[in-house]
Amino acid sequence: MKRIIERIDGGITAPTGFEAAGVACGIKTSGLDLALVVSSPPARAAGIFTTNLAVAAPVLVTRQHLERARGTARAIVINSGCANACTGEQGLADARAMAADTAGYVGCPPEQVLVSSTGVIGVPLDSHKIRQGIGFAYETLSREGRATAAEAIMTTDPWPKDTAVRAEGPAGTFHVGGMAKGAGMIEPNLATMLGFLTTDAAVAPSLLRRALNEVADTTFNAITVDGESSTNDMVLVLANGHGETTIDDTSYRMFVDALHTVCHQLALAIVKGGEGASKLVSIRVIGAHTSEEAKVAARAIANSPLVKTAVHGGDPNWGRIVAVAGRAGVRFELGRAQVRIGNIELFRDEQIFTDREPAAAEHMRTGEVALEIDLGTGSHGTATVWTCDFSAEYVHINADYRT
Amino acid sequence: MKRIIERIDGGITAPTGFEAAGVACGIKTSGLDLALVVSSPPARAAGIFTTNLAVAAPVLVTRQHLERARGTARAIVINSGCANACTGEQGLADARAMAADTAGYVGCPPEQVLVSSTGVIGVPLDSHKIRQGIGFAYETLSREGRATAAEAIMTTDPWPKDTAVRAEGPAGTFHVGGMAKGAGMIEPNLATMLGFLTTDAAVAPSLLRRALNEVADTTFNAITVDGESSTNDMVLVLANGHGETTIDDTSYRMFVDALHTVCHQLALAIVKGGEGASKLVSIRVIGAHTSEEAKVAARAIANSPLVKTAVHGGDPNWGRIVAVAGRAGVRFELGRAQVRIGNIELFRDEQIFTDREPAAAEHMRTGEVALEIDLGTGSHGTATVWTCDFSAEYVHINADYRT
Repeated sequence: MKRIIERIDGGITAPTGFEAAGVACGIKTSGLDLALVVSSPPARAAGIFTTNLAVAAPVLVTRQHLERARGTARAIVINSGCANACTGEQGLADARAMAADTAGYVGCPPEQVLVSSTGVIGVPLDSHKIRQGIGFAYETLSREGRATAAEAIMTTDPWPKDTAVRAEGPAGTFHVGGMAKGAGMIEPNLATMLGFLTTDAAVAPSLLRRALNEVADTTFNAITVDGESSTNDMVLVLANGHGETTIDDTSYRMFVDALHTVCHQLALAIVKGGEGASKLVSIRVIGAHTSEEAKVAARAIANSPLVKTAVHGGDPNWGRIVAVAGRAGVRFELGRAQVRIGNIELFRDEQIFTDREPAAAEHMRTGEVALEIDLGTGSHGTATVWTCDFSAEYVHINADYRT
Repeated sequence: MKRIIERIDGGITAPTGFEAAGVACGIKTSGLDLALVVSSPPARAAGIFTTNLAVAAPVLVTRQHLERARGTARAIVINSGCANACTGEQGLADARAMAADTAGYVGCPPEQVLVSSTGVIGVPLDSHKIRQGIGFAYETLSREGRATAAEAIMTTDPWPKDTAVRAEGPAGTFHVGGMAKGAGMIEPNLATMLGFLTTDAAVAPSLLRRALNEVADTTFNAITVDGESSTNDMVLVLANGHGETTIDDTSYRMFVDALHTVCHQLALAIVKGGEGASKLVSIRVIGAHTSEEAKVAARAIANSPLVKTAVHGGDPNWGRIVAVAGRAGVRFELGRAQVRIGNIELFRDEQIFTDREPAAAEHMRTGEVALEIDLGTGSHGTATVWTCDFSAEYVHINADYRT
């Protein structure tokens, strides 16, 4: 029987049974800053969270709610403009109030509301504005609201990011939708970003967690903008079973594929929308001793200011890639290493192919740049990480973010 | 009896028995690019080298020469403009030829010549030009040549860096001089830079190695410009015993102090001259579980693009410092952490002192910015790392370096 996964219009409300809204409540000086996503049936929920030890209040509260409600959730409420991080006991109280206020409108226990914040660290959340915002948002909930919701979670993002797919297979038809915010402070493990995913398939909590972890590993956790990891990162998925399809072990792979398609698109959109980014860069590492070492090397290359500025300048400076691989702390054999830029081999067995550099420079003038290095260990560890180039614009954005 | 360590005019030739020269041999398209330092008596020598696995030919050759000549050296020859890295067997032959050519003029075995290169990776060294340059340099050796030598080792450095001290103590009087090059690609362990030090004290090889390692730990290995570690880093010290003083266990501390004074000045000069740098930033970490963890956290903060751009913009964004400490991979207690900028406390026990931010911003408008974070573990590990801010100029320099 056929298996189809196709891109469809819509974002987080493409799966049935979900509504969303994005409103302005005055946390930011201008623009939308509060998003609400509500599932009409109670949904199964799973999440992955920042590994930063300076963890923000909304992350603590959402983890607690997922646990107390045993992975059941009715709504997600998100604000931008204030991270509610480094805000102590008051911050925890404000995050809990945000959930309780939402629960009051939705008509569910507060533990069934998940809370998320993004923005400046070390500023208290204005609970009064948030409460008003939740009221506005609840009144305007709709399927069309996915567009304003995706806009309301942005900080320095240049554009909103959402996407959806329709999946059809032996187990039936279902939909997966999602929205994300990124910009600066994006780094794998966890990808230091916010991602919200929905599906109208019915998925048992354990399968849902497994699928989210599996997919995040090669999508949200395989991107980096500047090597930072924020205090507020989270990716949440809600599966409300409002459609016809139940995911079991047989249809699990199909579900993972659909979820991966959505997350991959959101992850690449985050990189493309990185602060000051003008190019999408894929870094593929092969010939590593293990896949874990391949990922370490790929991240080091992806986060190297010297590599990122060379990509920005369109300079096929493969020597910088070798130099970063050499200091990445993983096994590396210079004598057997190879570097390719856009499939053009520039270095192999300590031989230099200078005459091919113009062709590599040509490839680097495109919007998508592919770097590949073989670490020469003779083993077969591989990993791919995506990043963006490093421009003067990044410096301007981050030097002037608050002032 | 009195102990004096005083700054004196001069650089690498301030200690007696040393001469130097810097010449143009055409490796760079313009400017000086070959430096020679010669000691009239054979000197004791020690070195520390890059930990990058993509190690360049001159590093391999110099390590070998130190070993074969049992820590005795007569000369150091350095070129800029070409790193002679990733150049395979030919690169090794070229580095050995550079030593042999110098040895021919000086009249010593080739193993008593130490070789160093800095510049673009993956370009073969033009041995013919180097040989001519060595001849010119040898003819112009003088004590005044320290200035041109310091200039000849520069790549994108904005100015030459050299300094010297005179030390007087119970053991007698001696001098220590030094020159360094830095700019981009500066990171601790090893500091990814070139440093050359001389002294007219007599120092046994084992004491000389011990002193260099001890001093480097808090100077060259405690600075970072962009987190990179190059293929070519080395710091060499020559002690020729041409003066009256012999260093033994009793006078060891005095020697370390004098060497530290020179290395500290060179290290800070490297940071101040970092690519696009406009501010010198000290990052002091206290309250870490161990001093090793303090250093890891300090480096993470020093290399964070978000912190470095905030410093550039004069924004007292202490939240970014907390966020980086939280993801640095060391023990950290948010509830007991403290952040000070220029001694102004902005965060303590999860309390935020927003009203003090203007005073902190005032401090950040100066040329030297002091950041301090207490990791709140209750232990007493401390470390200080120096770095510079991150400007749009850094991006311009590195996007356009080769093209």
